Amino acid sequence: MSTPVPASSSTVILTGDRPTGPLHLGHFVGSLRNRVAYQHEYRQFIMLADAQALTDNMDDTDKVKRNVIEVALDYLAVGIDPALSTLLIQSQIPELAELTFYYLNLVTVARLERNPTVKEEIRLRGFERDIPAGFLTYPASQAADISGFKAQLVPVGEDQIPMIEQTNEIVRRFNRMAGREVLLEAQALVPALGRLPGIDGKAKMSKSMGNTINLGATADEVRAAVKKVYTDPLHLRVQDPGHLEGNVAFIYLDAFDPDQAGLAELKARYVQGGVGDSVVKARLEGCLQDLLEPIRTRRAQFAQDRGYVMQLLKEGTAKARAIVTATVDEVREVLGLRYF
Amino acid sequence: MSTPVPASSSTVILTGDRPTGPLHLGHFVGSLRNRVAYQHEYRQFIMLADAQALTDNMDDTDKVKRNVIEVALDYLAVGIDPALSTLLIQSQIPELAELTFYYLNLVTVARLERNPTVKEEIRLRGFERDIPAGFLTYPASQAADISGFKAQLVPVGEDQIPMIEQTNEIVRRFNRMAGREVLLEAQALVPALGRLPGIDGKAKMSKSMGNTINLGATADEVRAAVKKVYTDPLHLRVQDPGHLEGNVAFIYLDAFDPDQAGLAELKARYVQGGVGDSVVKARLEGCLQDLLEPIRTRRAQFAQDRGYVMQLLKEGTAKARAIVTATVDEVREVLGLRYF
Repeated sequence: MSTPVPASSSTVILTGDRPTGPLHLGHFVGSLRNRVAYQHEYRQFIMLADAQALTDNMDDTDKVKRNVIEVALDYLAVGIDPALSTLLIQSQIPELAELTFYYLNLVTVARLERNPTVKEEIRLRGFERDIPAGFLTYPASQAADISGFKAQLVPVGEDQIPMIEQTNEIVRRFNRMAGREVLLEAQALVPALGRLPGIDGKAKMSKSMGNTINLGATADEVRAAVKKVYTDPLHLRVQDPGHLEGNVAFIYLDAFDPDQAGLAELKARYVQGGVGDSVVKARLEGCLQDLLEPIRTRRAQFAQDRGYVMQLLKEGTAKARAIVTATVDEVREVLGLRYF
Repeated sequence: MSTPVPASSSTVILTGDRPTGPLHLGHFVGSLRNRVAYQHEYRQFIMLADAQALTDNMDDTDKVKRNVIEVALDYLAVGIDPALSTLLIQSQIPELAELTFYYLNLVTVARLERNPTVKEEIRLRGFERDIPAGFLTYPASQAADISGFKAQLVPVGEDQIPMIEQTNEIVRRFNRMAGREVLLEAQALVPALGRLPGIDGKAKMSKSMGNTINLGATADEVRAAVKKVYTDPLHLRVQDPGHLEGNVAFIYLDAFDPDQAGLAELKARYVQGGVGDSVVKARLEGCLQDLLEPIRTRRAQFAQDRGYVMQLLKEGTAKARAIVTATVDEVREVLGLRYF
């Protein structure tokens, strides 16, 4: 980010996830960990983006519904505090759909088709010519989410920056129409360590690639996953020098080892030769078990009272809806859509 | 239409107009006149489609707002009876935007681009590559309007039939997802005399072509317009034979003359020669003044109490909203978007 938006309890930050599966260590590093910090610095809204998840899950709407509470449990497990962060379910704020509907008039088809994030996601999903209209237009929906909350900060990966730009284009166009600053421009907040590789060494940890360690993983699952972690394929004998680049075990240790001095020393020895992968992996497993054990415990506790979690979501959504409704009222006013 | 939907007070018919200017004789012949009849046969909803009008009027939202009440006055003036028909303002039923939002996931971009009605309107408006996304996607919005009311009949011009087909595709796809008939397919109701030419002889009477006679026109305006009505350019001398084809004066007489026997006789004499255009136009002016005088009077009466008209719209909109809300609740249920 360029000019940082000052940390203030009145600065709104909007984040969220598409509830299509359990969250994993990639989410923890790329976003969840930061959110636990942000909630002390900003007014944080965390959206369970079920409506957005439908854009490419119309064949499995049940999956989306089921995962709303699962992802909420993940949030609570990692330390998102509902007293500091507002959790909300996107679809339960239909005013966001209404805003989207208006914003569709403020963006051209050609502009949506040029959006690099949309282009890439269309490619990834293999849509080609059969793109659902809701998928092509989801930048308008994202603009509705961001501007509906008057969010000034939106934590995103680098690949999502064009989405924020598109939001700001719509915001500027609307404000020009209104002749005043009704909506606020938002700033992308790109995390330093944004992306965790998969256990298989692929660039991204991702559910669809089956290379994740989920936040709710059992101790046995963690152990089994660590065994499979990709290290240095050239490091065949203990006495050989090992390589750190692309070595997922060390990348994970960089991210999770609380003893970074000890880690630096281990790395030095590994590069010289004489340290087996089993030593590195044992250290990694220890770190991950230490990290995930309390998360797993908290998750299990919250999972025992799903009624409480749903109540949290209900209250958070009601609070969030009031804010979006106020924005939509202003937008309607500008569009001349207030009659009675 | 193929198999006619039986006339029944429980069969819903949905019609409406984009409130972008005063209604004219073209609207009267193509739709208003029929609506006055339909309201006795069906459960009729008449939509002031202000939200749809915004898709290509974001630069003049005020025009849309102003025309909502003007068009409502036109409705009341021609005999739409608020006790029999429900008048409603589209934008004041945000559930229609929400339905649109869901339907965008049920139609592909390619399918929208192939829609002949959309293609033609894009051409007419000169949008080419700068098509607002809301314009390309308005078939999804129209599907929301039609299915939101569970309308089984939609009176449209022939050129709009592809829109009804697109609605029905979305309806079928949704019902397939649901595994039952949640939404209803609609049938296009194409009027026998669908389109009135402009006074200049162009195929369509249209505000943007400046060739209309508005329903609210004064007696002087009617007189002046009739003088300009296109007749037979080859009929230079009274004694020459005149031609009926493309002769707008006679086309209007066909549509409005209550004495069709007398008209048939006049036509015969006109074709033989010996009848001047002034005679034809005098008859036409008489018919139009007779038609429009009571409309003008009723319009002026209603215009004196705009508060009453707004109250009608408010009540009609509330009644309509309850129906759409019930549909949206069913749709949310199918999509798994009910949590609390």
